[in-house]
Amino acid sequence: MTLRNGTVAEASERDGVSRRRVLTAIPTGVAVSAAAGNSLAETLADVPAREPGDVLSGRSERSKYVQISRIPEAGPGVRNVDPSDAINSKTPLNKLVGVITPSDLHYERSHAGVPDLDPAKHRLLIHGMAQKPLVLTVDDLQAMPSVSRVNFIECTGNGWEDWKKADENLTVQNTHGLISTNEWTGVPLRFLIDLVGKDRGSNWMLAEGGDGAGVDRSIPLTDEIMDEAIIAYGQNGEPLRPAHGFPIRLIMPGFEGNLHIKWLRRLKFGDQPWMTRWETARYTQLLADGKARQFQLRMETDSVITSPSGMMEIRPGYNRITGLAWSGHGKIVKVEISTDAGKTWKEAELNHPVLPKAQSRFQMDWEWDGKPTKIVSRSTDEKGNVQPDRKSFIDQVGTNALFHYNAQQTWSIDSGGRVRNVLA
Amino acid sequence: MTLRNGTVAEASERDGVSRRRVLTAIPTGVAVSAAAGNSLAETLADVPAREPGDVLSGRSERSKYVQISRIPEAGPGVRNVDPSDAINSKTPLNKLVGVITPSDLHYERSHAGVPDLDPAKHRLLIHGMAQKPLVLTVDDLQAMPSVSRVNFIECTGNGWEDWKKADENLTVQNTHGLISTNEWTGVPLRFLIDLVGKDRGSNWMLAEGGDGAGVDRSIPLTDEIMDEAIIAYGQNGEPLRPAHGFPIRLIMPGFEGNLHIKWLRRLKFGDQPWMTRWETARYTQLLADGKARQFQLRMETDSVITSPSGMMEIRPGYNRITGLAWSGHGKIVKVEISTDAGKTWKEAELNHPVLPKAQSRFQMDWEWDGKPTKIVSRSTDEKGNVQPDRKSFIDQVGTNALFHYNAQQTWSIDSGGRVRNVLA
Repeated sequence: MTLRNGTVAEASERDGVSRRRVLTAIPTGVAVSAAAGNSLAETLADVPAREPGDVLSGRSERSKYVQISRIPEAGPGVRNVDPSDAINSKTPLNKLVGVITPSDLHYERSHAGVPDLDPAKHRLLIHGMAQKPLVLTVDDLQAMPSVSRVNFIECTGNGWEDWKKADENLTVQNTHGLISTNEWTGVPLRFLIDLVGKDRGSNWMLAEGGDGAGVDRSIPLTDEIMDEAIIAYGQNGEPLRPAHGFPIRLIMPGFEGNLHIKWLRRLKFGDQPWMTRWETARYTQLLADGKARQFQLRMETDSVITSPSGMMEIRPGYNRITGLAWSGHGKIVKVEISTDAGKTWKEAELNHPVLPKAQSRFQMDWEWDGKPTKIVSRSTDEKGNVQPDRKSFIDQVGTNALFHYNAQQTWSIDSGGRVRNVLA
Repeated sequence: MTLRNGTVAEASERDGVSRRRVLTAIPTGVAVSAAAGNSLAETLADVPAREPGDVLSGRSERSKYVQISRIPEAGPGVRNVDPSDAINSKTPLNKLVGVITPSDLHYERSHAGVPDLDPAKHRLLIHGMAQKPLVLTVDDLQAMPSVSRVNFIECTGNGWEDWKKADENLTVQNTHGLISTNEWTGVPLRFLIDLVGKDRGSNWMLAEGGDGAGVDRSIPLTDEIMDEAIIAYGQNGEPLRPAHGFPIRLIMPGFEGNLHIKWLRRLKFGDQPWMTRWETARYTQLLADGKARQFQLRMETDSVITSPSGMMEIRPGYNRITGLAWSGHGKIVKVEISTDAGKTWKEAELNHPVLPKAQSRFQMDWEWDGKPTKIVSRSTDEKGNVQPDRKSFIDQVGTNALFHYNAQQTWSIDSGGRVRNVLA
């Protein structure tokens, strides 16, 4: 533990004057109260009495004291909408800890709402340039060899809120809530490729969803993708939830969220991309010169401080800075934090194990002197990619684009300790 | 992938006679149907039409087609009880995949029901042989340095159903459902020890819960425990659920479930165990000679095949065997499977990453010839501990005991493919 006695232990001694006092909650500050001798029993007497609790149950529901949910939104800057107008629903990164996202809080993005498909009727057709086209049931898939991987899925639009300007009232849920990390379980794509006998000449695969929008995308069959992609039926140990593709979903570790086709009903092998509307009219990157970039599929190295973050309030003295970093290239090897608006940087601690293409939790102790400042994080992945600052990013990509925003996120802190979203 | 073409691909060719036929679901068998050319579109036409789905939401609920829950029970052999008589509620290992247990399906064991404590009023008292006794709020703890670890928690009574006889109607949820694996997040015990300045002469710690039963246990302060124990507030990314100790719980990786004190309200440092009723009248191990063993705290190396398992039914031909292995000593390094009642053994594949003191998923391909047999797994951990067969285990421990049952689990399979719980 790097937190020094000089910070926390002294705080407890300063409070020694009033030994019996139980300090009230102080968000994001370490507050401790001294209590000794006979007064201990009296201190605990303030704690509610111990009484018999509720009976055991089939499922553990959340505490009535815990309010936690996603936020449905309708696009960049379009918030507080009727749920029927929502196009995505963002994960509350500001209220989560660790790395795993609870299944019911994994971010949502859909193009025709959320179907609840009958798994007994659902089929996966695998055909095209292959020796033995097949139609598989969900039970067929569940009987095959399987793998589990902890991976992030990130909507390619994550971060788009900050592309042109910064709304200072945004939380990190608003700015970065289109990413989540779950343990995914299912059949390796490679197994199905061998099963149908894909032709050697086929190096593209069309994946099509069974929702109303019929989202379909062309996927290049690189060795990396054939080795790592999964036709998943499990999410954090249980069956997928409808919002996340029940009964089956394509998992493409490290790549755009929209390639992780939900409600998967078809895989077709071919020798060129299909140029579907989802890769021509949608999900292309409009560059500064007016040209559009297609098939920018991999998510870049990125990070964000989740605490303190937008709309939080801190106090002078000890504060713990923590956040999440990730890269579609593999493992995160370093996260640096600046508490002086990017002038100087210090390396944060990474929680272990650091898994490839999963979010990684970082943290750093910080003594805030109470003066206005800006805090920012930057990640480096195992391929040497460094998360760019905003100016470099905009210089390169321009402001026409909507996708793959991975510039460093800056939070300003004013003299009152108020944390706000700003552009660096 | 080790599944050979000779198994699966031939199955698809055999079915080439009826190209349009979509095979109905065959549990635990690989069934594939050939479909080619023009008939493909017709095949998919059988799949329900694509329609607009439900609106996006704040939380993703489970599919209406998924029935999954724990089973409340009242003790060894006492099932189908009224929930108010239940003393534990078991995780459905037969319906889960991967390693992570969904938070709401993590097993429950309580001695006075489930309190839903107000986190704003809850306090943690840390005192005894220490320089600066403290009372901490939940907010205090959440502002401190934290760690996250993926660990199993196992009730020391897990497996007790099979101690004396085998009820052949038990599922793996009945026999082994008192273990789960979650990602736990909170403050390292070592940090709090340093904060209060524990006396060098103190090598025991009393941990006390805030439930009606006031469960309290004496914990030896070994280096391992001081390095790994956590005062947790997070479970799979979100706040603990009341059934699992909300707002705070002691996490003791690798040790008896009842040491992971839920609703934690007190830690006291001393120089000897307190000999509470939970470690004298309860949670002691009655041996064959009538003597009782105290403080047998660590969970031993163990494993169980979750599929095929009790009350399932399989078909001749290809079957995937999968299950979970774990050890309180550290990592699992090997799982072997016998499909001939223990005569010969073959090493299973372990899913990676294998994490210390977490459940690990194993699997093996198996071609069942349709003749009656017995299947069984045995684990080996990084300290060289090998899971004992039942005879060795009973020879050593006898049949008076109730806890720390880690003998190999055997499932018999009759000529009809019916899988049943038996003693080897």
